[in-house]
Amino acid sequence: MRSLPVPIEFDQLRVVLVDARNPLNIGAAARAMSNFGFLRLRVVNPYDVAFEGARSAVGAAELLAQAEKFETVAEAVADCTLVVGTTAIGHRDLQHSLHRLEVGAPLIRAHLGSGPCALLFGSEKFGLSNRDLSHCNWLMHIPTRSEHLSMNLGQAVAICLYELARDVTARAEPERVNPASAAEVERIHETLLAALEASGYPKQNSSESFQSAVRRMINRLRFQSGDAEFFLGMLRQIVWKLTKTKPT
Amino acid sequence: MRSLPVPIEFDQLRVVLVDARNPLNIGAAARAMSNFGFLRLRVVNPYDVAFEGARSAVGAAELLAQAEKFETVAEAVADCTLVVGTTAIGHRDLQHSLHRLEVGAPLIRAHLGSGPCALLFGSEKFGLSNRDLSHCNWLMHIPTRSEHLSMNLGQAVAICLYELARDVTARAEPERVNPASAAEVERIHETLLAALEASGYPKQNSSESFQSAVRRMINRLRFQSGDAEFFLGMLRQIVWKLTKTKPT
Repeated sequence: MRSLPVPIEFDQLRVVLVDARNPLNIGAAARAMSNFGFLRLRVVNPYDVAFEGARSAVGAAELLAQAEKFETVAEAVADCTLVVGTTAIGHRDLQHSLHRLEVGAPLIRAHLGSGPCALLFGSEKFGLSNRDLSHCNWLMHIPTRSEHLSMNLGQAVAICLYELARDVTARAEPERVNPASAAEVERIHETLLAALEASGYPKQNSSESFQSAVRRMINRLRFQSGDAEFFLGMLRQIVWKLTKTKPT
Repeated sequence: MRSLPVPIEFDQLRVVLVDARNPLNIGAAARAMSNFGFLRLRVVNPYDVAFEGARSAVGAAELLAQAEKFETVAEAVADCTLVVGTTAIGHRDLQHSLHRLEVGAPLIRAHLGSGPCALLFGSEKFGLSNRDLSHCNWLMHIPTRSEHLSMNLGQAVAICLYELARDVTARAEPERVNPASAAEVERIHETLLAALEASGYPKQNSSESFQSAVRRMINRLRFQSGDAEFFLGMLRQIVWKLTKTKPT
């Protein structure tokens, strides 16, 4: 299973877009929600043309059709037991606790097990207002360069949801292809030496240390099994052409 | 320091967009690069109108102006000692090792300390071709729902760069505001009890267990110092109005 298994508690997150103005951003937010399995979108005071325009978002039409519209932030977060605002922390003197995303996301994940949480995003130009922020329990920001703090809304939503869905226990998946066996590597080694000899490669060819150097090189290549067979066929053809005799 | 400190090795990453067609996506990729401090963009065979159209990306004009254009993937990755392709792993039978982003990003981070790495993204519609993928050492994917695997290009770039810049050692930042002292909490407690008494609140008001219950409630509220003073002022006004005498 290579795709994301969606935990049941993801249904407890409400992504709340406040005063969003650009249909492309609303659509992008919806698409990222669908990618990561957070399907409950709420919009507060959207510019109507923007909201209608967003409905073409790739793969997220159903999610947008089910989005809930509210007049105020208070109504949009009323049923939530945790309200988190996002901010680019520019000029404002914040009155809230502020967590970077890596720290805030596990707090939200933990809360989703017990009740609904609203994650608020402000407008493209101004972010969340001080009034919007007053509805929040705490704030979260994505760490960006001081030279360029402000992120695109659709990208900010995508990154926050990625981090919420991120698997902290992820391990490297096993290789899909089988590494070549030592015997296969050794056959390559022998056939390559035969090809070198047949090609008149200088005589250190036959020395023990040269042969070891060639074997080490081949081992560093970490041939996959199929590739080893493929390469061995090439070498055999070369040896045959050079010697006009089939190598053993 | 709340913004992202950019490690010097970020300069070793080349973000390579292959066959990108939509100027908004190229611009979004450039903006995310600027947000996270990866400033070297390479484009392979961009649709020229798209590339010119992207130059308006918010805050990323300089980065786009310095982008390098190549005809082929081979040229775009020639100076790199690690080449990683991104894929949504749909229909294709992959011949490469595939890591999820959480696992692949630390491998790239480790490599950036020793030499340049190319991170390839394919076109919006088709992703990287099998030929493009043959230039890669291994592949990486962002885990998404099986019902909606494919991400928007600008969002996929943003998430990959966020993960590369992500601080695995991030800890909660200290609270910005000071919690109220126990003395402040106790003054709130006393004043609230005075208000309750003056309001004719039922007589368990004066019992020891009721008073303790009120104190516990106030302590659970975790007042900040300024808020405690603010709230105490309100209570004092209420008590004054109820009793027409200033509480002590």
